[in-house]
Amino acid sequence: MKPIEVSRNIFRFENGCVEEKEDKVVTEFPVTVKVNGQEFVTMVCTPEFIEDMVIGFLASEGVIRRYEDIQDIWVQEKEGFVHVKTENINPYYRNFQNKRYITSCCGVSRQGFVFVNDALTAKKMKDIRVKVSIDDCFRLMNTMQESAETFRETGGVHNAALCDVHKIILSRMDIGRHNALDKIYGYCLKHSIPIGDKIIVFSGRISSEILLKVAKIGCEVILSKSAPTELALQLAEDLGITAVGFIRNRSLNVYTHPERIIDLEK
Amino acid sequence: MKPIEVSRNIFRFENGCVEEKEDKVVTEFPVTVKVNGQEFVTMVCTPEFIEDMVIGFLASEGVIRRYEDIQDIWVQEKEGFVHVKTENINPYYRNFQNKRYITSCCGVSRQGFVFVNDALTAKKMKDIRVKVSIDDCFRLMNTMQESAETFRETGGVHNAALCDVHKIILSRMDIGRHNALDKIYGYCLKHSIPIGDKIIVFSGRISSEILLKVAKIGCEVILSKSAPTELALQLAEDLGITAVGFIRNRSLNVYTHPERIIDLEK
Repeated sequence: MKPIEVSRNIFRFENGCVEEKEDKVVTEFPVTVKVNGQEFVTMVCTPEFIEDMVIGFLASEGVIRRYEDIQDIWVQEKEGFVHVKTENINPYYRNFQNKRYITSCCGVSRQGFVFVNDALTAKKMKDIRVKVSIDDCFRLMNTMQESAETFRETGGVHNAALCDVHKIILSRMDIGRHNALDKIYGYCLKHSIPIGDKIIVFSGRISSEILLKVAKIGCEVILSKSAPTELALQLAEDLGITAVGFIRNRSLNVYTHPERIIDLEK
Repeated sequence: MKPIEVSRNIFRFENGCVEEKEDKVVTEFPVTVKVNGQEFVTMVCTPEFIEDMVIGFLASEGVIRRYEDIQDIWVQEKEGFVHVKTENINPYYRNFQNKRYITSCCGVSRQGFVFVNDALTAKKMKDIRVKVSIDDCFRLMNTMQESAETFRETGGVHNAALCDVHKIILSRMDIGRHNALDKIYGYCLKHSIPIGDKIIVFSGRISSEILLKVAKIGCEVILSKSAPTELALQLAEDLGITAVGFIRNRSLNVYTHPERIIDLEK
């Protein structure tokens, strides 16, 4: 497999001086997924945990509904292909692939879905299976950031972690924001890790696509270092997900479903 | 048109206290592009300069080769559709759409192209039509950052600017990194703005897709606040583009083609 970072000679300008030095840069690896011999998608990713990423991607796109739907998966590393064999393609996926969810009032459904498949795949959180304190939010974000060595060295990747309130269970990084979450989802599906009482900690922005990914994975809480978008918050509101953003220097914003934040209980 | 940001009530935790306050959040707007009545793509974007974005996107994808290839373009704002009529779809586009550029050695061509269309659409810079000093790099990045009001308020968008060595000519922002560049490209095509001697200043990372977009637009220099990837630098090397990254606090890295950086001339 290709390395996840490589060294390069650069010119570094600092404190008024230029020096030629060696620097580390993240790699990008294009992976083409073939499902039953048909080209399905090309993803550009950080070259590690590729099988997990493809499993997570196919599940979050609604192509498969469980890991057992995959008969065979084979990563052709050098060439950048992943071959998936499945006899159980989700019939809803076939019917609604890329179909827009159009309503009378505007391009987006009242629930904020753009695609029909998203509306069918995203899970609505009806219970409260996990609660966090504001201190938990800071601690989990710090732990993830500290363990994110490639980001510190190259500044070029996003980090995601699956946590319980006490600790990080699984941590993944990728140059693609979605890929990091797909790698977590695929691992959990493959190893039957229960997700409902877990938390996603994320370095990137909470866009609608990221929020949908969290809902499809089945997590109730997302903690992010960055900003959310309005559409993501509308989806979080409707899907019952607690979204916390801008977790930086002991400050943060709770955007939706504050009932899972212990400090905000009346 | 939908506003580019909206106000929301949030819980803000800071200095050990929680307060309920109003905060600004960027909007996301899904736009479905129909070319000659056929659904082509759905892009999620910041709702401004949508026509420019679609023109820039179609040109950088190689669907059209010039603005005049578009007979008619109509933005159906409320519903989020853009209808494009063209009798001149680039024949190369039809033939090579999403075809991977496979060579014997690995998934990526020696030149770093993943898709055949990219290899056909990206321009190779053979001359040196623009040179910048290190001070120009700092000044242009500062000017862009200072003018990026929505980013300061919401933290949720990427900024891109087309500049000459003296000043910003055009500045665009979007929640999608590529969209900001497509908005610049579309505007330049529509108004026949010469691009060869210009510079792109960008807040986001230099991924291979961003580098290809810059090459397709036809700029020789990209200045970024963030990190590049190895594949992007390989493309920059081969396409003759000067890539400068990590422009922060009066320090920066020159990664490729230093011959356009005045201070590095022997």
